[in-house]
Amino acid sequence: MRDSTRVTFLPDGQTIEVEEGTSVLAAAAHIGLAIASPCGGNATCGRCQVRVEQGIWEPNQAEQRLLTSEELAQGFRLACQGRCSGDIVVFVPEFSRTAIHQIAVEGIGAEIEVDPAVRKIFLRLPAPSVQDLRSDFSRLLAGIGSPDLSLDSDPGFLREAATAIRRANFRVTAVVADSKVIAVEEGDTSADCYGAAVDIGTSTIVLYLIRLSTGERVAVAATPNPQSRHGEDVISRVQFARSQPDGTARLQALVRDALNRLIGQACKQAGVLPNHIWEMVFVGNSCMTHLMLGVPPEGLGMAPYVPSFSCAQYVPASALGLRINARARAYVLSGIAGFVGADTVGVILATRLWQDDGLRVAVDIGTNGEVVVASGGRLLAASGAAGPAFEGARISSGMPAVAGAIDTVRIEDEIAVTTIAGAPPRGICGSGLVDAAAELLRMGVVQPDGRLGPAEPGALPAWLAERVHGKGAGASVELVSAKQSGGKPVKLTARDFRELQLAKGAIAAAISLLLQKTGASYDDVSELLLAGAFGNYIRPASALAIGLLPPVPLERIRPVGNAAGVGAQVALLSRPLRRQAEEIARAVEYVELCDEPGFYDRFAELMALAPSQAVGRGG
Amino acid sequence: MRDSTRVTFLPDGQTIEVEEGTSVLAAAAHIGLAIASPCGGNATCGRCQVRVEQGIWEPNQAEQRLLTSEELAQGFRLACQGRCSGDIVVFVPEFSRTAIHQIAVEGIGAEIEVDPAVRKIFLRLPAPSVQDLRSDFSRLLAGIGSPDLSLDSDPGFLREAATAIRRANFRVTAVVADSKVIAVEEGDTSADCYGAAVDIGTSTIVLYLIRLSTGERVAVAATPNPQSRHGEDVISRVQFARSQPDGTARLQALVRDALNRLIGQACKQAGVLPNHIWEMVFVGNSCMTHLMLGVPPEGLGMAPYVPSFSCAQYVPASALGLRINARARAYVLSGIAGFVGADTVGVILATRLWQDDGLRVAVDIGTNGEVVVASGGRLLAASGAAGPAFEGARISSGMPAVAGAIDTVRIEDEIAVTTIAGAPPRGICGSGLVDAAAELLRMGVVQPDGRLGPAEPGALPAWLAERVHGKGAGASVELVSAKQSGGKPVKLTARDFRELQLAKGAIAAAISLLLQKTGASYDDVSELLLAGAFGNYIRPASALAIGLLPPVPLERIRPVGNAAGVGAQVALLSRPLRRQAEEIARAVEYVELCDEPGFYDRFAELMALAPSQAVGRGG
Repeated sequence: MRDSTRVTFLPDGQTIEVEEGTSVLAAAAHIGLAIASPCGGNATCGRCQVRVEQGIWEPNQAEQRLLTSEELAQGFRLACQGRCSGDIVVFVPEFSRTAIHQIAVEGIGAEIEVDPAVRKIFLRLPAPSVQDLRSDFSRLLAGIGSPDLSLDSDPGFLREAATAIRRANFRVTAVVADSKVIAVEEGDTSADCYGAAVDIGTSTIVLYLIRLSTGERVAVAATPNPQSRHGEDVISRVQFARSQPDGTARLQALVRDALNRLIGQACKQAGVLPNHIWEMVFVGNSCMTHLMLGVPPEGLGMAPYVPSFSCAQYVPASALGLRINARARAYVLSGIAGFVGADTVGVILATRLWQDDGLRVAVDIGTNGEVVVASGGRLLAASGAAGPAFEGARISSGMPAVAGAIDTVRIEDEIAVTTIAGAPPRGICGSGLVDAAAELLRMGVVQPDGRLGPAEPGALPAWLAERVHGKGAGASVELVSAKQSGGKPVKLTARDFRELQLAKGAIAAAISLLLQKTGASYDDVSELLLAGAFGNYIRPASALAIGLLPPVPLERIRPVGNAAGVGAQVALLSRPLRRQAEEIARAVEYVELCDEPGFYDRFAELMALAPSQAVGRGG
Repeated sequence: MRDSTRVTFLPDGQTIEVEEGTSVLAAAAHIGLAIASPCGGNATCGRCQVRVEQGIWEPNQAEQRLLTSEELAQGFRLACQGRCSGDIVVFVPEFSRTAIHQIAVEGIGAEIEVDPAVRKIFLRLPAPSVQDLRSDFSRLLAGIGSPDLSLDSDPGFLREAATAIRRANFRVTAVVADSKVIAVEEGDTSADCYGAAVDIGTSTIVLYLIRLSTGERVAVAATPNPQSRHGEDVISRVQFARSQPDGTARLQALVRDALNRLIGQACKQAGVLPNHIWEMVFVGNSCMTHLMLGVPPEGLGMAPYVPSFSCAQYVPASALGLRINARARAYVLSGIAGFVGADTVGVILATRLWQDDGLRVAVDIGTNGEVVVASGGRLLAASGAAGPAFEGARISSGMPAVAGAIDTVRIEDEIAVTTIAGAPPRGICGSGLVDAAAELLRMGVVQPDGRLGPAEPGALPAWLAERVHGKGAGASVELVSAKQSGGKPVKLTARDFRELQLAKGAIAAAISLLLQKTGASYDDVSELLLAGAFGNYIRPASALAIGLLPPVPLERIRPVGNAAGVGAQVALLSRPLRRQAEEIARAVEYVELCDEPGFYDRFAELMALAPSQAVGRGG
């Protein structure tokens, strides 16, 4: 047993007793004081500077090399080189402390520790000498100090890195992505390190620009997906890609140009150079990720709807034509199946769906309603083919959720609607449709079986009966008159209700079937998370009233915003969570609904416009 | 213990007793009968066809999928699927046997087993179904069956592979490089698989075109290194790269264009499409490999002569502008130090220098003489700075070893010379210089201390004395008169002998010092291998006479041809040996001669033109 000795760290004033000979860096770690040591205590980065306030500490060769004579004269030494002996007191300046950042994740409330896959490490490497004949790259790798490190294999990298090391006289910043050195820059550029997280939605693309060292979100930019000109939904884009010459390449070019515009906008907003973006992380449904990478979405266009790839992809950003640093990477999160893509994995990641004990359900309603159920360590996923009704398509007065779209409907003594941005009503969007259906159902204007018109003649108040025109398949109800709208009336037809029934039935059946597979009933659901724009705008009570959502108490329903986009940000900022997302994607049990016995019966049952418990139970 | 059963393989007629249930493929392996199974017995490649001659073997699902109904009717089955039960007899057709090729390596006499890093595997993958929803790429990877397999991350690869799988209806050929799938082609292209091994010499570039599946060398092409226009030797090219604008890029372009010409020539010779070349393996000194990759050879131009990289490099061939398959790889062998490059590792690999028990020495004489000594499991390497004398430069009548160069010299009653290609003598090349020096030394025209002229007046026969002109530093000896040459006379001057002394002294001192470091003496040398063109043409007796080589018995001296180029071919054809070369490169002990105490004394001593034992001993 060696003698013990005491070290005190200022200005914190903490003292620790350690064995003689322990390094000062290790002693600090014992009491949870994080001193920066990107080189791992290898005496190559010179970052772990402390000032000796009391005690004797002669500078060794490494310290003489890495510290200026001025710094040495002021008493600065390297914590990794100092050995505790006698009682010593050191001052740890702010610039030597590591930043362990926790960032709060929007809409989720959880915090993550910032530990990005891409990081910059400034190095002061020893120059070659007859006693140290290692090649420049061996020197570099040893300086970074992590084991299993490799170099990028691009000749451009080799040329630029070799040149930078020599021109900067062995004072360089290494850009490390996971365990690969992807760039070497002259001098200390460690402050210029950004990443972008992108959600490529079928209708909207959102880009978040993030400072990687702190996790701070410095800008957000969004744009409609310009691929829409070749089809509103996934299936029509797949058809375009398959049927048109260069269809895939043309769709890829559209999304690439949109991404470059967003990069430009976000960088301008934040005063960041695009060249300082080192990684982009993408989520999106399988069709969007295939098209972004230029992979023909062939298999997604025919049964059994199999993607070309599901696992995560790393590709050089330059090969995608992204105008960020030429050595930057693009990362696409894992998907699960043809119609349960990387966006769903993003939702799972953002909500940590797997972490809780309770039975949790996440639903992302769009053209496809992706449903994930977490229960007792298992994750099950399915996709309900809702069709585009909730996005306003195939509905006679339907429109996307933009200015002038009816988004809420209330019926008391009159039909009261609100519109997005308060503009004159031009049509109805998904949340308005669900609201309208719930209110018309309550008032008896529409029946649970989807029939439009009163259950029996005279059952409606006269003012309301007047709004219903025609009969049977030709019936319609006028929500807003031509006079009120100042243009065309906004109506819902019997056919619109049929579309709604198909859409809600698909989602409800997916939820019900997954719950049944876990052996759970509706009552067991501890939390029902609504992801995506639709989930944010929908009125949960209305969704419950028509049985779009399973019958859980209102307080257990929680909209979680653009969880897919948040998932992309989490993957950008946390290496461990990114890895976990890949494992989870592999572990999720995908349920192909069409192949499940009894699915179509359940679907038919759940097409009723009524709270689900009345007609079906999971389990 | 299960029951045993017997299987007989025809036409070989071998019978083996195995446990019931053993696969036929495994049973064949037991008796050393190699049935092709590139998918590893995974029932995806369909290559292991055997015909059942006796016994019952109903085709299973996999066999029904992979074999045509005609094949099934003829009794063909898959050896990986058949289970031994009852006594069975199978016929193994020629096309189901794997080719375990042994190729003899030129100049070395050793054989290697063909096991290239790049291989093609034809696959018949099952099509997706509702019961099998794996993505196309998961299906592909499972079909190849090797564990730890990954896909190339280039978006071009992803696009092309996805397209090929769908267009060829899941009948594709995977191109696998080590454990990465680098391409997927439609249908069965497994026959079209070539590689090229290249020795980039400072003066000559040689390319060997090789069929990877058999190891067969189908063409050889060579060209002078066009970089020579910017400097004959390594140092002047480093200077050019450092001092000229785009110097490195211009030198890289010259070698790239030369390589593309060689590829074109070799492919034309062999009737092979350049597109069917999937890997190129390169050796060369550090300057050549840096320039080939476009890496500035900065560090090689100043003490302590450290390269930017020493370890092996894999880069995409397309990024180097090589006109072979766009998805092909280029591999550069590991180097050891600034002046002991990948060419020396090639020599070590070609000669298996590490494998023998005896003390073996390999010497590659060029501008630098690289020396490697293998002894008791250790490998030591050094570079003797011989200068360009052996390549004919800095010698007054010196010239490269081309037509008209004097390559042998004999002195009896006259000075008899031969020239390369029998052309009229225009000058003298390295081997001629060594020969001339040995003969002039024997006749007393030159003295061991390098002085030109007889030891004492009248010591020479009159006819020979007439050939010596001038005195002291101004002296010269005429080997060929103007009359004989039909042009200028070919002379050697006192200054030429000084150059020769410096050159031979550097090589001899390097050998001597490395031997000393292993504790061995000259007598212990069991084999002295001479690599490179110079080693092929030099007369060993003459090299011994002037002490260029250490005093070992003549029969222990063995020229081994272009061993560096052979090493490149070995690395191209053998994955295990390539891996071993990388390990060996790391394990070689590099000796920096300038830093060795006593080196300069030894160098001065060994400058004498005399057999080495007279003046120095290793050990």
